Amino acid sequence: MIKIVLIGSGNIAFHLIQKITNTEGLFLAQVFARNTNDIALNYPNLSVTNIWKELKEADVYILAVSDNAIEEVSNQIPFENKLVVHTAGSVAMTQLSIKNRRGVLYPVQTFSKNKIIDFSKVTFCIEADNQNDYQILEEITKLLSAKSIQLNSEQRLALHISAVFVSNFTNHMCHLANEICQQNNIDFDLLKPLIIETAQKVNILSPLEAQTGPAIRNDFQTIQKHTDFLSENNLKNIYQLITTSIQQTHGKEL
Amino acid sequence: MIKIVLIGSGNIAFHLIQKITNTEGLFLAQVFARNTNDIALNYPNLSVTNIWKELKEADVYILAVSDNAIEEVSNQIPFENKLVVHTAGSVAMTQLSIKNRRGVLYPVQTFSKNKIIDFSKVTFCIEADNQNDYQILEEITKLLSAKSIQLNSEQRLALHISAVFVSNFTNHMCHLANEICQQNNIDFDLLKPLIIETAQKVNILSPLEAQTGPAIRNDFQTIQKHTDFLSENNLKNIYQLITTSIQQTHGKEL
Repeated sequence: MIKIVLIGSGNIAFHLIQKITNTEGLFLAQVFARNTNDIALNYPNLSVTNIWKELKEADVYILAVSDNAIEEVSNQIPFENKLVVHTAGSVAMTQLSIKNRRGVLYPVQTFSKNKIIDFSKVTFCIEADNQNDYQILEEITKLLSAKSIQLNSEQRLALHISAVFVSNFTNHMCHLANEICQQNNIDFDLLKPLIIETAQKVNILSPLEAQTGPAIRNDFQTIQKHTDFLSENNLKNIYQLITTSIQQTHGKEL
Repeated sequence: MIKIVLIGSGNIAFHLIQKITNTEGLFLAQVFARNTNDIALNYPNLSVTNIWKELKEADVYILAVSDNAIEEVSNQIPFENKLVVHTAGSVAMTQLSIKNRRGVLYPVQTFSKNKIIDFSKVTFCIEADNQNDYQILEEITKLLSAKSIQLNSEQRLALHISAVFVSNFTNHMCHLANEICQQNNIDFDLLKPLIIETAQKVNILSPLEAQTGPAIRNDFQTIQKHTDFLSENNLKNIYQLITTSIQQTHGKEL
């Protein structure tokens, strides 16, 4: 049984609490959160605290806090030589306080509170100071039914940036489309099968092969119609920059 | 039985030929394509031509040609008072020659030759000069097991622009991520479950609710790390423009 204390109350913490409390072989000994109310309400049998000196002993401390708080929070842990890991994509493992054994468990996935996560679709990028701790982290991911891969801090940063492109930026593209639809009395639902199909294509074709649309066809007239239609500057700028990037990628020129 | 002549040989034509030849109630009388070889090879029993005066009589002529060719091709059709439709998102129905009855069958989907399309996931936007022709087009979409909706040319243009954002632009985001991964020896496959999850989220949450990542968290330090890491100007510009757009959307400021 691996005894875990989880620190944090954001989206990743929310899903980890839910998953760990339902995973055989893992025991969630405590959650540390600034605001304890929400968690105490949902998990009445769980030990919850916001006082550092009340922190329980555990095998692993998982910090699911904001990137900028990782260093400070790791300094607050009132123990030494424990395994302390963070869950951030873009924070080096060495940002964690040296007084404890350090590691990283970065899930390559997007977590929203209102959407259940299938952990078999999550890969954790693992990093650890030593081989024994690496194996503990690997064991945790296995018990969570997730996959894992070893990545150093620099590769993890590159992967996190890539994740921002494929997830945060694509979602924002959907938001901008939603706005265009609303302004023109079009049901955004019409686009949902296209959104799914576009994502599924990447499982079969490389994004380079999967590219379609006016930019790759170098269809100047359609591009012109689209930019004329987009009266709002932000939409126009984004349309033009990405269109040019597609054309450059495929060796086309305006 | 609705008798169809298809004009064109691009991605949409490719999938329509495949689907129509396998659909009861529809008869593909002929395909007109500049290069007849590929089609003749794959469909030995199909009538294929590249000579306008050999064009057969049919109930509907479907033009799946490039946007800029629609007007000219519609003028070449050696018949009058036939139902002639195009399949483009951004071309007004009135671009079709007035000598025939005009209509539009625009599929809201992305078509690549190497990816099979499930037509039950395709919605066709229909437009027609008259109610009778509208019903013929609606009947064709039903026989194709697809959905349909009535949209006028201006709404269709807005929908097509939205489709460019959710499909062409999101796919390009995946391509850029693939490049970042390759440059850092990271397996792009790691991101595939994230790509699928991000798309599936839009079926459950609005893109506004589904947004995650450093931009919406206003995580300036992470954004700075990412833009410092991206040495290539195009990637940096795209990162910054979309990050700012997300922050503006959610009322945050750099």
